Amino acid sequence: MSFSSPQDVEDAFYDAIDENDPQAMIPVWSSAQEAACLLPMQPLILGGEQIATHWQNLMLPGLQVEISVRHLHWIEGLDLAVHLVEETFSGDPSQGSRPPIYGTNVYRREADGWKLLMHLNAPLPPAPGSLTMGLTLPEAPPR
Amino acid sequence: MSFSSPQDVEDAFYDAIDENDPQAMIPVWSSAQEAACLLPMQPLILGGEQIATHWQNLMLPGLQVEISVRHLHWIEGLDLAVHLVEETFSGDPSQGSRPPIYGTNVYRREADGWKLLMHLNAPLPPAPGSLTMGLTLPEAPPR
Repeated sequence: MSFSSPQDVEDAFYDAIDENDPQAMIPVWSSAQEAACLLPMQPLILGGEQIATHWQNLMLPGLQVEISVRHLHWIEGLDLAVHLVEETFSGDPSQGSRPPIYGTNVYRREADGWKLLMHLNAPLPPAPGSLTMGLTLPEAPPR
Repeated sequence: MSFSSPQDVEDAFYDAIDENDPQAMIPVWSSAQEAACLLPMQPLILGGEQIATHWQNLMLPGLQVEISVRHLHWIEGLDLAVHLVEETFSGDPSQGSRPPIYGTNVYRREADGWKLLMHLNAPLPPAPGSLTMGLTLPEAPPR
Protein backbone atom coordinates (compact mmCIF):
# COMPACT_ATOMS: atom_id res chain seq x y z
CA MET A 1 0.00 0.00 0.00
CA SER A 2 1.37 3.40 -0.98
CA PHE A 3 0.38 6.80 0.45
CA SER A 4 0.60 9.92 -1.67
CA SER A 5 0.64 12.49 1.15
CA PRO A 6 1.52 12.80 4.84
CA GLN A 7 -2.19 13.24 5.60
CA ASP A 8 -3.06 9.95 3.89
CA VAL A 9 -0.55 8.14 6.12
CA GLU A 10 -1.90 9.91 9.17
CA ASP A 11 -5.47 8.89 8.38
CA ALA A 12 -4.37 5.26 7.92
CA PHE A 13 -2.43 5.35 11.21
CA TYR A 14 -5.38 6.50 13.30
CA ASP A 15 -7.78 4.22 11.40
CA ALA A 16 -5.53 1.25 12.27
CA ILE A 17 -5.76 2.24 15.97
CA ASP A 18 -9.55 2.69 15.78
CA GLU A 19 -9.88 -0.70 14.07
CA ASN A 20 -7.35 -2.36 16.41
CA ASP A 21 -5.72 -3.82 13.32
CA PRO A 22 -1.97 -4.46 13.65
CA GLN A 23 -1.79 -5.62 10.02
CA ALA A 24 -3.10 -2.25 8.85
CA MET A 25 -0.36 -0.62 10.95
CA ILE A 26 2.47 -2.26 8.98
CA PRO A 27 2.23 -0.32 5.66
CA VAL A 28 1.81 2.95 7.57
CA TRP A 29 5.30 2.83 9.09
CA SER A 30 8.67 3.31 7.53
CA SER A 31 10.63 0.09 7.81
CA ALA A 32 13.82 2.12 8.35
CA GLN A 33 16.02 1.63 11.37
CA GLU A 34 15.54 5.33 12.23
CA ALA A 35 11.78 4.95 12.77
CA ALA A 36 10.82 5.84 16.35
CA CYS A 37 7.68 5.32 18.41
CA LEU A 38 7.01 6.73 21.88
CA LEU A 39 3.57 5.87 23.29
CA PRO A 40 2.28 6.89 26.72
CA MET A 41 3.73 4.70 29.49
CA GLN A 42 5.88 2.82 27.00
CA PRO A 43 9.61 2.83 26.41
CA LEU A 44 10.93 4.46 23.25
CA ILE A 45 10.95 1.90 20.43
CA LEU A 46 13.42 2.36 17.57
CA GLY A 47 13.37 0.56 14.22
CA GLY A 48 10.51 -0.21 11.85
CA GLU A 49 10.52 -3.93 12.57
CA GLN A 50 10.59 -3.49 16.34
CA ILE A 51 7.75 -0.93 16.10
CA ALA A 52 5.58 -3.36 14.09
CA THR A 53 6.13 -6.03 16.76
CA HIS A 54 5.31 -3.48 19.49
CA TRP A 55 1.96 -2.61 17.92
CA GLN A 56 1.21 -6.30 17.48
CA ASN A 57 1.78 -6.80 21.23
CA LEU A 58 -0.34 -3.78 22.15
CA MET A 59 -3.29 -4.49 19.86
CA LEU A 60 -4.72 -7.44 21.72
CA PRO A 61 -7.82 -9.03 20.19
CA GLY A 62 -11.00 -7.37 21.42
CA LEU A 63 -9.30 -4.12 22.47
CA GLN A 64 -11.58 -1.16 21.85
CA VAL A 65 -10.00 2.21 21.39
CA GLU A 66 -11.54 5.23 19.81
CA ILE A 67 -9.35 8.14 19.13
CA SER A 68 -10.26 11.59 17.95
CA VAL A 69 -7.57 13.79 16.54
CA ARG A 70 -7.39 17.57 16.44
CA HIS A 71 -4.76 19.17 14.26
CA LEU A 72 -2.78 21.82 16.10
CA HIS A 73 -0.05 22.54 13.68
CA TRP A 74 2.01 21.32 10.81
CA ILE A 75 5.23 21.84 8.94
CA GLU A 76 5.90 20.56 5.45
CA GLY A 77 9.46 20.15 4.20
CA LEU A 78 10.67 18.74 0.91
CA ASP A 79 10.89 15.14 2.10
CA LEU A 80 9.82 15.35 5.75
CA ALA A 81 6.60 16.62 7.30
CA VAL A 82 5.80 17.18 10.98
CA HIS A 83 2.23 17.17 12.27
CA LEU A 84 1.41 18.12 15.82
CA VAL A 85 -1.99 16.86 16.95
CA GLU A 86 -4.06 16.53 20.09
CA GLU A 87 -5.31 12.96 20.62
CA THR A 88 -8.35 12.18 22.74
CA PHE A 89 -8.95 8.53 23.56
CA SER A 90 -12.15 6.85 24.48
CA GLY A 91 -12.90 3.17 24.76
CA ASP A 92 -14.20 1.03 27.60
CA PRO A 93 -16.52 3.46 29.45
CA SER A 94 -15.70 1.75 32.78
CA GLN A 95 -12.21 3.22 32.48
CA GLY A 96 -13.55 6.76 32.65
CA SER A 97 -12.33 9.57 30.46
CA ARG A 98 -8.67 10.39 30.02
CA PRO A 99 -7.13 13.76 29.40
CA PRO A 100 -6.03 14.42 25.82
CA ILE A 101 -2.37 14.09 24.91
CA TYR A 102 -0.10 15.63 22.30
CA GLY A 103 1.09 13.56 19.37
CA THR A 104 4.02 14.52 17.15
CA ASN A 105 4.07 12.66 13.87
CA VAL A 106 7.02 12.87 11.46
CA TYR A 107 6.42 11.64 7.91
CA ARG A 108 9.02 10.97 5.24
CA ARG A 109 8.73 10.62 1.49
CA GLU A 110 10.38 7.26 0.75
CA ALA A 111 10.81 5.21 -2.42
CA ASP A 112 7.32 3.73 -1.96
CA GLY A 113 5.46 6.89 -0.95
CA TRP A 114 4.98 8.77 2.33
CA LYS A 115 5.55 6.80 5.53
CA LEU A 116 5.24 7.45 9.24
CA LEU A 117 8.77 7.75 10.61
CA MET A 118 8.18 9.00 14.17
CA HIS A 119 5.20 9.04 16.48
CA LEU A 120 5.84 10.62 19.86
CA ASN A 121 3.25 11.30 22.56
CA ALA A 122 3.53 13.84 25.34
CA PRO A 123 1.06 14.81 28.06
CA LEU A 124 -0.70 18.15 28.06
CA PRO A 125 0.35 20.36 30.98
CA PRO A 126 -1.61 19.97 34.23
CA ALA A 127 -4.46 22.39 34.84
CA PRO A 128 -3.32 25.62 36.50
CA GLY A 129 -3.32 25.25 40.29
CA SER A 130 -3.01 21.46 40.28
CA LEU A 131 -0.03 19.77 41.87
CA THR A 132 3.04 19.56 39.70
CA MET A 133 5.81 17.03 40.04
CA GLY A 134 9.23 18.22 41.09
CA LEU A 135 8.15 21.84 41.30
CA THR A 136 8.08 23.51 44.69
CA LEU A 137 5.22 25.97 44.86
CA PRO A 138 5.34 28.82 47.36
CA GLU A 139 3.11 28.27 50.36
CA ALA A 140 0.02 30.39 50.71
CA PRO A 141 0.46 33.11 53.34
CA PRO A 142 -1.29 32.42 56.67
CA ARG A 143 -4.68 34.11 57.07
CA MET B 1 24.02 34.87 13.79
CA SER B 2 23.81 32.08 11.27
CA PHE B 3 24.13 28.34 11.91
CA SER B 4 25.48 26.04 9.23
CA SER B 5 24.09 22.75 10.58
CA PRO B 6 21.25 21.45 12.80
CA GLN B 7 23.88 20.43 15.38
CA ASP B 8 25.24 23.98 15.57
CA VAL B 9 21.74 25.26 16.35
CA GLU B 10 21.25 22.54 18.93
CA ASP B 11 24.50 23.39 20.69
CA ALA B 12 23.51 27.08 20.79
CA PHE B 13 20.04 26.20 22.14
CA TYR B 14 21.34 24.19 25.10
CA ASP B 15 24.15 26.70 25.72
CA ALA B 16 21.53 29.47 25.97
CA ILE B 17 19.68 27.42 28.62
CA ASP B 18 22.90 26.68 30.52
CA GLU B 19 23.82 30.36 30.42
CA ASN B 20 20.27 31.49 31.26
CA ASP B 21 20.57 33.97 28.40
CA PRO B 22 17.29 34.87 26.68
CA GLN B 23 19.12 37.05 24.15
CA ALA B 24 21.19 34.06 23.01
CA MET B 25 17.93 32.17 22.52
CA ILE B 26 16.61 34.59 19.89
CA PRO B 27 18.90 33.72 16.91
CA VAL B 28 18.47 30.01 17.65
CA TRP B 29 14.78 30.00 16.82
CA SER B 30 12.98 30.35 13.54
CA SER B 31 10.90 33.50 13.57
CA ALA B 32 8.21 31.73 11.55
CA GLN B 33 4.65 31.50 12.71
CA GLU B 34 4.91 27.68 12.55
CA ALA B 35 7.59 27.53 15.24
CA ALA B 36 6.38 25.52 18.24
CA CYS B 37 7.68 25.08 21.78
CA LEU B 38 6.37 22.64 24.38
CA LEU B 39 8.25 22.68 27.69
CA PRO B 40 7.41 20.57 30.75
CA MET B 41 4.41 21.95 32.65
CA GLN B 42 3.93 24.70 30.09
CA PRO B 43 1.25 25.23 27.48
CA LEU B 44 2.18 24.77 23.83
CA ILE B 45 3.53 28.04 22.45
CA LEU B 46 3.23 28.72 18.72
CA GLY B 47 5.02 31.41 16.72
CA GLY B 48 8.64 32.55 16.82
CA GLU B 49 7.85 35.89 18.46
CA GLN B 50 5.66 34.33 21.15
CA ILE B 51 8.35 31.72 21.86
CA ALA B 52 11.02 34.40 22.31
CA THR B 53 8.77 36.19 24.82
CA HIS B 54 8.10 32.88 26.60
CA TRP B 55 11.83 32.20 27.08
CA GLN B 56 12.32 35.76 28.29
CA ASN B 57 9.65 35.16 30.94
CA LEU B 58 11.13 31.81 31.97
CA MET B 59 14.76 32.89 32.15
CA LEU B 60 14.57 34.98 35.27
CA PRO B 61 17.80 36.66 36.39
CA GLY B 62 19.83 34.37 38.64
CA LEU B 63 18.16 31.16 37.51
CA GLN B 64 20.67 28.32 37.46
CA VAL B 65 19.98 25.41 35.19
CA GLU B 66 22.46 22.88 33.98
CA ILE B 67 21.34 20.53 31.32
CA SER B 68 23.12 17.51 29.93
CA VAL B 69 21.95 16.12 26.63
CA ARG B 70 22.25 12.58 25.33
CA HIS B 71 21.53 11.97 21.66
CA LEU B 72 19.14 9.10 21.14
CA HIS B 73 18.40 9.39 17.50
CA TRP B 74 18.25 11.62 14.49
CA ILE B 75 16.77 11.99 11.07
CA GLU B 76 18.12 14.32 8.41
CA GLY B 77 15.90 15.44 5.53
CA LEU B 78 16.67 17.86 2.75
CA ASP B 79 15.48 20.95 4.59
CA LEU B 80 14.26 19.55 7.93
CA ALA B 81 16.10 17.57 10.59
CA VAL B 82 14.67 15.87 13.67
CA HIS B 83 16.82 15.14 16.72
CA LEU B 84 15.54 13.09 19.60
CA VAL B 85 17.51 13.62 22.82
CA GLU B 86 17.34 12.81 26.49
CA GLU B 87 17.69 15.90 28.68
CA THR B 88 18.86 15.72 32.29
CA PHE B 89 18.50 18.87 34.35
CA SER B 90 20.36 19.89 37.40
CA GLY B 91 20.42 23.22 39.15
CA ASP B 92 19.60 24.27 42.67
CA PRO B 93 20.69 21.19 44.70
CA SER B 94 17.93 21.87 47.26
CA GLN B 95 15.42 20.92 44.58
CA GLY B 96 16.78 17.37 44.40
CA SER B 97 17.35 15.49 41.20
CA ARG B 98 14.73 15.21 38.50
CA PRO B 99 14.16 12.34 36.15
CA PRO B 100 15.42 12.90 32.60
CA ILE B 101 12.95 13.84 29.90
CA TYR B 102 12.76 13.38 26.14
CA GLY B 103 13.29 16.33 23.84
CA THR B 104 12.30 16.36 20.19
CA ASN B 105 13.96 19.13 18.20
CA VAL B 106 12.99 19.94 14.62
CA TYR B 107 15.41 22.11 12.64
CA ARG B 108 14.77 23.79 9.31
CA ARG B 109 17.12 25.23 6.72
CA GLU B 110 15.89 28.78 6.23
CA ALA B 111 17.17 31.72 4.17
CA ASP B 112 19.59 32.66 6.99
CA GLY B 113 20.81 29.16 7.88
CA TRP B 114 19.51 26.36 10.08
CA LYS B 115 17.01 27.33 12.78
CA LEU B 116 15.19 25.57 15.59
CA LEU B 117 11.57 25.22 14.50
CA MET B 118 10.10 22.92 17.16
CA HIS B 119 11.20 21.89 20.62
CA LEU B 120 8.88 19.43 22.36
CA ASN B 121 9.46 17.73 25.70
CA ALA B 122 7.88 14.51 26.88
CA PRO B 123 8.42 12.55 30.08
CA LEU B 124 10.16 9.21 30.08
CA PRO B 125 7.84 6.35 31.01
CA PRO B 126 7.48 5.54 34.72
CA ALA B 127 9.69 2.79 36.10
CA PRO B 128 8.14 -0.67 35.75
CA GLY B 129 5.94 -1.45 38.76
CA SER B 130 5.31 2.17 39.70
CA LEU B 131 1.82 3.61 39.72
CA THR B 132 0.53 4.76 36.36
CA MET B 133 -2.13 7.38 35.81
CA GLY B 134 -5.42 6.28 34.32
CA LEU B 135 -4.31 2.70 33.86
CA THR B 136 -6.03 0.02 35.88
CA LEU B 137 -3.58 -2.72 36.72
CA PRO B 138 -4.84 -6.20 37.55
CA GLU B 139 -4.70 -7.00 41.25
CA ALA B 140 -2.15 -9.50 42.44
CA PRO B 141 -3.73 -12.89 43.19
CA PRO B 142 -4.20 -13.65 46.93
CA ARG B 143 -1.50 -15.82 48.45
